[in-house]
Amino acid sequence: MISSAVFPIQKINHNEMQNTDDYIAVEEPVEIRISFLNEQKKLITRPLSVTMRTPAPSQDIELAAGFLLTEGIICGKDDIQKARQLDEHVVLIELNEKIRPDMHKLERHFYTSSSCGVCGKTSIDAVKTSCPVQVPDSNFIAVSPSIIYSLPIQLSERQNTFAATGGLHASALFDDKGNLLSVREDVGRHNALDKLIGAAMFDDILPLQNYILLLSGRASFELIQKATMSGISFVCAVGAPSSLAVELAIDRKMTLIGFLRNERFNIYCGAERVMLKEEPINK
Amino acid sequence: MISSAVFPIQKINHNEMQNTDDYIAVEEPVEIRISFLNEQKKLITRPLSVTMRTPAPSQDIELAAGFLLTEGIICGKDDIQKARQLDEHVVLIELNEKIRPDMHKLERHFYTSSSCGVCGKTSIDAVKTSCPVQVPDSNFIAVSPSIIYSLPIQLSERQNTFAATGGLHASALFDDKGNLLSVREDVGRHNALDKLIGAAMFDDILPLQNYILLLSGRASFELIQKATMSGISFVCAVGAPSSLAVELAIDRKMTLIGFLRNERFNIYCGAERVMLKEEPINK
Repeated sequence: MISSAVFPIQKINHNEMQNTDDYIAVEEPVEIRISFLNEQKKLITRPLSVTMRTPAPSQDIELAAGFLLTEGIICGKDDIQKARQLDEHVVLIELNEKIRPDMHKLERHFYTSSSCGVCGKTSIDAVKTSCPVQVPDSNFIAVSPSIIYSLPIQLSERQNTFAATGGLHASALFDDKGNLLSVREDVGRHNALDKLIGAAMFDDILPLQNYILLLSGRASFELIQKATMSGISFVCAVGAPSSLAVELAIDRKMTLIGFLRNERFNIYCGAERVMLKEEPINK
Repeated sequence: MISSAVFPIQKINHNEMQNTDDYIAVEEPVEIRISFLNEQKKLITRPLSVTMRTPAPSQDIELAAGFLLTEGIICGKDDIQKARQLDEHVVLIELNEKIRPDMHKLERHFYTSSSCGVCGKTSIDAVKTSCPVQVPDSNFIAVSPSIIYSLPIQLSERQNTFAATGGLHASALFDDKGNLLSVREDVGRHNALDKLIGAAMFDDILPLQNYILLLSGRASFELIQKATMSGISFVCAVGAPSSLAVELAIDRKMTLIGFLRNERFNIYCGAERVMLKEEPINK
């Protein structure tokens, strides 16, 4: 069974609020590391990739082996000498002694980003320390459920290419009155958000602490990380958040809403910015 | 308006087949390149990232600027001297002369993979030349619509964590009779597929030319590329494919099916492997 985590949430259903628990898919980084003998028969150990994944017993080894195959580094099982989990965040694949991976290719394979460490905590710390946009402490917006309900409806009216192709993610920016200001679409959801934030930067409206971000799909750690970098404190997603997304949102004192559809949504954190009956929740 | 492309497809609706055209979201790589002055006041130009995106007028510059901000390389518009599109696959951001990006951090930012070139053609060629799994020329399976309809139903019965969290992508492997062999779930769809293929490799069943792959969401270029590396020739997706996914599937002579739900699906290529009324389509 793959892992999920339980978080306390507020469920809003047609303006009724209920405190409950929600199961959230776990998202955590794992480093895929390989070792091999070089031309001089020296044992080389190299990190190859850090990826955000959902942990499950024995599946990190499958993930690492599949990654090596689908990225063209190995040709099959015989190229693997031994595969083992070093700890919960590192898998080591020892290549067969006949395998000499192309170092240049490996170089190009290894990637990480400021948001990507070897454990969730490290990732969150990295985001905190590198966040360039200063958000004033007085940051506070309050949004009513009726405005929140309207966001995906407004987005779908504007998502032209999605309507035609069914194949695009969108990010949309609203002011705190629920007025739609801009929409960006892309096959990659991180690209849709980068476009939206890039456009906001050129429009000179950063930091975005008084705006609402709507994500057309799920809220992953990467998207929440990008949102924090632009100062956004109110994020709504039509789909589910991941565990690390919720943890980062809590840490950054954001409001994170998920499963926003049909006059319903879940509040994962920051409920004080949601006004039920003209009064902030939980006040 | 963001770009979509028109492809000829076969639409299957409760065993009725119709030839039609479909709008597909365009997916193409773009390279984000930066230039800046180093300590010795020498102008350095560096590729920073290659990302698969949906092109749209002026949005590549927004994308590049947003990426630099959300990855912590710049702090705002003032850090950009000039931003321009060099060609349809390259954007150059010239940083303000006061900005000295951390070279080590840049190093870690630049990533690409065997599937990622500076244009779709290059990407497809890269996949072709690096594909390690040899598939026999005699590769041929034929699958009836009723088997195809059953795939997402079988998957949803097995997707435990998705049922609980609503937050996971899945990849599932079936034999050509529609028997479900394995399912892998993950917050990242590329991870779900890497796990599935890794497990198949350990089960010693590669190449997978006689199996059916089901993707719980959209079919991106990256997923089709990974499928080709394991020899899979029959891919079904519950969601939409991207343009480059279709192009790669055509090039690799795969069968690619999208929008598979409620006894309906679209065939993007390889219709000869789909049997309507016990006879292959278009024969």
